Order: sequence, then C-alpha cells, then structure tokens
Amino acid sequence: MKGVIATRAPGHPVVDLTHGIPAQDVFAGALVLAHAAPWFPKGTIHVAVVDPGVGSSRAALCVETKEALFVGPDNGLLTLAAPRAERRRVFSLTNERFHLLPRSATFQGRDVFAPVAAALAGGVAPAELGPETDVAIELESPRPEIAGGVMSARIVYVDGFGNLVTNVAADSLPDGEIAIEVGGRPVGGLGRTYADGAPGGPVAVVGSWGLIEISVRGGSAAATFGAGPGTPVRIARA
Amino acid sequence: MKGVIATRAPGHPVVDLTHGIPAQDVFAGALVLAHAAPWFPKGTIHVAVVDPGVGSSRAALCVETKEALFVGPDNGLLTLAAPRAERRRVFSLTNERFHLLPRSATFQGRDVFAPVAAALAGGVAPAELGPETDVAIELESPRPEIAGGVMSARIVYVDGFGNLVTNVAADSLPDGEIAIEVGGRPVGGLGRTYADGAPGGPVAVVGSWGLIEISVRGGSAAATFGAGPGTPVRIARA
Amino acid sequence: MKGVIATRAPGHPVVDLTHGIPAQDVFAGALVLAHAAPWFPKGTIHVAVVDPGVGSSRAALCVETKEALFVGPDNGLLTLAAPRAERRRVFSLTNERFHLLPRSATFQGRDVFAPVAAALAGGVAPAELGPETDVAIELESPRPEIAGGVMSARIVYVDGFGNLVTNVAADSLPDGEIAIEVGGRPVGGLGRTYADGAPGGPVAVVGSWGLIEISVRGGSAAATFGAGPGTPVRIARA
Repeated sequence: MKGVIATRAPGHPVVDLTHGIPAQDVFAGALVLAHAAPWFPKGTIHVAVVDPGVGSSRAALCVETKEALFVGPDNGLLTLAAPRAERRRVFSLTNERFHLLPRSATFQGRDVFAPVAAALAGGVAPAELGPETDVAIELESPRPEIAGGVMSARIVYVDGFGNLVTNVAADSLPDGEIAIEVGGRPVGGLGRTYADGAPGGPVAVVGSWGLIEISVRGGSAAATFGAGPGTPVRIARA
Repeated sequence: MKGVIATRAPGHPVVDLTHGIPAQDVFAGALVLAHAAPWFPKGTIHVAVVDPGVGSSRAALCVETKEALFVGPDNGLLTLAAPRAERRRVFSLTNERFHLLPRSATFQGRDVFAPVAAALAGGVAPAELGPETDVAIELESPRPEIAGGVMSARIVYVDGFGNLVTNVAADSLPDGEIAIEVGGRPVGGLGRTYADGAPGGPVAVVGSWGLIEISVRGGSAAATFGAGPGTPVRIARA
Repeated sequence: MKGVIATRAPGHPVVDLTHGIPAQDVFAGALVLAHAAPWFPKGTIHVAVVDPGVGSSRAALCVETKEALFVGPDNGLLTLAAPRAERRRVFSLTNERFHLLPRSATFQGRDVFAPVAAALAGGVAPAELGPETDVAIELESPRPEIAGGVMSARIVYVDGFGNLVTNVAADSLPDGEIAIEVGGRPVGGLGRTYADGAPGGPVAVVGSWGLIEISVRGGSAAATFGAGPGTPVRIARA
C-alpha cells in the first residue's frame, strides 16, 4: 500500500495508525479509528483495511465528513469514526480508473484503497470515484443498560497493555462512590490514574478515549481477569 | 538505521516495508521483498537486512536493476527481487568512505547499509560504492513438480494472518476442477475469495502475490493445519 | 500522538524508534533511547513515552543537551540518553498553553508530550514550556563489579532476537582469553560475529551498543539460557 501511494502521490506524508488490530476484528478497528481520527488534521484521508470480506460483493467506500475522508470496505469499519449524523456524502468506489487492475481478490488495500487514497491526495474529487451510495453495514458501540440502579456494560476493547476498555462513557457514571465488577470479580471503585492501583492490583480509571477502563498496575488486566471483548461489566453504587 | 539516514540524507522519505520477518529467515525476507518492490516508484532504493552472517566474510551488495537499487547482504536476500536476468550491475560495498566506522560486527544495517542507502539517495553513483562483483548466493523459489497429473508443491510463506502461501503460480494450475491437500489433509477446490470458505473452514484462493494460498475463514490456516514453510501441498484434478 | 504532531507541526518528519519496549519497562526504554539517540541528527526532538506513572504527580520534562532535546516523563526514561553531565537545562512542562486540555490521566503522550514536541518543532523555545527544574529520578546502568579477577555483571536487555545484552563495556574486558557464564552456565569465550557460534550454540560478541552480548546462532539466547534482565553474568580469565 505504501509503495502504491509513494508511486501515485509522491511527497504526501503517510502515517501508520496501527498494525495491531486483531485479525478480522472489524469492530476493534472501527473503535481505534474512531478514537484516533479526531486528532488528525482537518482534511486527512483515513485509509482503513480490516477486510475479511475482501473480494466478495461487499462494497468499497469513500465517506466524506466535515473533517475528513474515510476510505475502506463497507463492513462497518468506517462507521464509528464517521457515524451517520456526521456524513456528508458516501461514494461507492466503482470507477476502475483509480484502481490497480487486475484487482487481487485478497488484498484490495493495495489495489483499491491505496490508489484511491493517492488519487484523493492528488486532488481527485470524491465524486469522481463512483456514484453516491449509502453505507450498508453500520456498527454501533453497544450501550450499557441501566436497571435498578445497576449499570450492565461490557468490555469492548483490550489495548496493547492488557487494559480492558468498557463501553461506559465517563460522563454517564452515577454520582457518588461506585463499585465495579468485571466478569463477576470486584475491581473496586474509580481511581484517577493507573498509579492509584496497588502494585499488581486492579484499578478502574477514565481512559484516554473518555471510557472507563480496567487496569492492573504493572500487569495486564486482560490476563488477571481472564477477560476480553464481551466480558460483562457491572457498575453499582458502592 | 533511520537516524543514520535522517542525518546523511535529510528529507528523503523512508518507508517501513515490514519488521515482521521471522528471525534469520532470509528466504521469507527475500519473498516479501520480491513481491513488494514492484509496487514502489522507479528508482526506489530498497534496503533489506536479514543478516545472520553479519560481520563474517559475506559480502555487502548494491544490485542495480532497470527499476531500482537493492542494498543488503550477499546471502540471497536480494535475489528474488532482483533475479539474475534483471540485474544490470552488482557492486561490492567495500568503499569505507560510505560506511560508519568502526563498523559493528553485529549490526551493519546501521553501519553499512543505511549510510550506503543515504549516499545513493544523495546522488552518489553505485559505482563509487566499490568494485563490480557477482552475486555469490542465489536463492530460488522451489518449483512444483508435476508427475502423473499431480502437482507436488509446498508452503513457502506464512503471512501475518496465518494464511499459507504455496509456490504454485495461479497460471500454472491444471484446467478444470482441482483438489488441494496440505500436509495430507484436504482443503477442497479453489475458491475466489476468503469469504468463499465456510466459517472456520479452509479455502484455497489466488493470493495477492499471484500464488495459490490456503486460508481458514476467520481463523489461521497455519494453526488449523499445523503447517508452515516446507509443508507439502498436493494438487490434482478433482 | 502522530495526529497531534501532524496537526500542530505539519511537514515535520517523524520517525518511529520502537514500539517494542516491554510494558512499563522504563529501564529498557531508557537503554534503547540512549543507544539510538546519538545516531540522529543534531537538534532532533526525542519524544519518549514509557510512563506507568502517567497522571500522577510525576513531572513532565524537556531536557536539553548540546545535541538534542528530550521530552518525556520524569521517571528516569531520559536519563541514560541525557545523563547529568551532558544536560544544559531541564524544564518542567507546566505551561498548559502547549498541552491539549483537558489532559487525559492515562495518555499524556497525546496530550502533553506530542503537542510539546510539536511546539518545539515549530520554533517554541524550551524555556517557554515551563520553569527550569532538576531531574528527580535518575537511572543508571548498573556497573559490573570486579573482585579476585572475576567480573560480576548482569543481563540488562533482551533484544528482539533473544540476544542477551550485558552491562559489560567491550573496552572494560580483561586482556587475554576469557570465559563467560550466564546464569551459571558456560557460554565460552568471546567471538567476533554471530556466525562464530556453532549452529544452535552460544557465542558472546561485542554488540552494536559496544556491550558484550550473548547470542545463540540461529536461535534465541533468552530461551536457551532461560535468562533475561537481571540474570547474573560472570567473566573470568580462561
């Protein structure tokens, strides 16, 4: 992909966001993109490829928002970073003038998404890439449920340190002291920093995505709790 | 290496191709380089360092083709990307004016290959790097054997998803339906995309290198088949 | 971090040094930074984030040397690359004009260190970042002890190949033939290159950091010796 971009859009800076998304984990890719994209300059072209359906009938998209362009497969990957309310127009990448032909059936990062990004970087208008379309596959981050004063949430992401990121926005927490459980095991209350945990012990903090996350000081919460995406999280008043 | 290049050739863009070649696996490095280099701009200086013989008497080379320059050790690493028929000239990197002295005996990426690449980027002619020479160590991708209508091939590479890449070029397949086995276990016939496999089941496809590869949908074919480089592959008419 | 830098200091080249420092291993980060920084151009802004105390009362620093600027937490991370004798001035990063507010309590790479680095790249003087201060936490690489002609050293770092890097500077070795043990097991004497080991066997060499390191030819010395940071190393005349 970088070779294609260097060939077709020489001089345009390319930034690696991550190569660490677990294989085929479209939701993890969507979350990371959603939380990183806002920090990039206005007008950035974000190319995202977590694409287990590559070569099938899944569409290829360019999604335009007020801030940026998002290029990738129509499998939900772009839809947390560019949610419906923020989309201006969506284009289906059918104009083969901007593809590398013949397209591989297994790596359209190289043959479709990179050359399309290079074309955009070189000044091609999104409307030239193909007809306007709608996003077919939407992802949404699951929202916690609240019943009887108890919030039922879950782990949605595990970062490279083994920190367990929940789907609980910091500003949705109940007032006062809280008690947090992960997979039925107590974490304790909410600390302010990783260093508020006892060495080797758990601590919940507001992470850099604005979500509650569970950490183990000097260790991996994922390993300590045997937890990962989908593990239930319970938050109640202490 | 990047510090050396930034010091000696400031402003020249540097692209990371991969840091994922298994330790000491010259053949894997040679394959990846061979399949990535053609996508880079004409005139690219490719620096490759998979160099278990660093510091020994193995030579250091600059190989010139019509398209690019390849800089690296004389251990075969450059010879799939720049095969004999495509070489114009080969130079032995003996001119210490372009080295960082004293050269480390364990990391000539920093002390020889990076500063030589920086010199080339800055306009030094390859012939200044040292005398013309021949490549001493040639690698070749093993070719499948065909006998009695059966193709005996092998796995040559495992990618980061656990896909098993064979040495069978897509255009060398027999006509008609085929049946593929990996390590004696059936894969089935040839699909078109990863998504043609049943969930958790195997599928053979033409990969982005133009080679037949074995995939497991939503999983790792390497783990499922217990296979890796060298595992035999059998292809017969179905 | 790269998005923040691209937004605030567009056009400034950014180089990834490593993403492979073990979690929370400040000493490993300090060693890698110390041995890589000298190869970068004069005036480079080095941003280092191994920061288990993020969000706590640990200070954030900009350390100025004759060669470079170092930006990171006051936990020792910068102190092998910029040891006391080489420091000109040290500034505490308290001027919030150069921070992204509100600062996350878990990722100040994004909210403090990256925007400060971008400010420096854009021409802000270090003295604008906050008041002069002293480094609070100093790291030092442990020195080998010598008694009765025997050098007692240790492993301080394991590289990505499993090579075991000791704290023994090559120029501190006794003259003549030596015998090396790691964790009580013999390595043999000092070779010149990795290739001086027998296949699968150990060899000690002078590594690219100028330190003695233990390698296993075609394998991992860390796995072979069950060794890692802290493992004792004994060097005596043979």
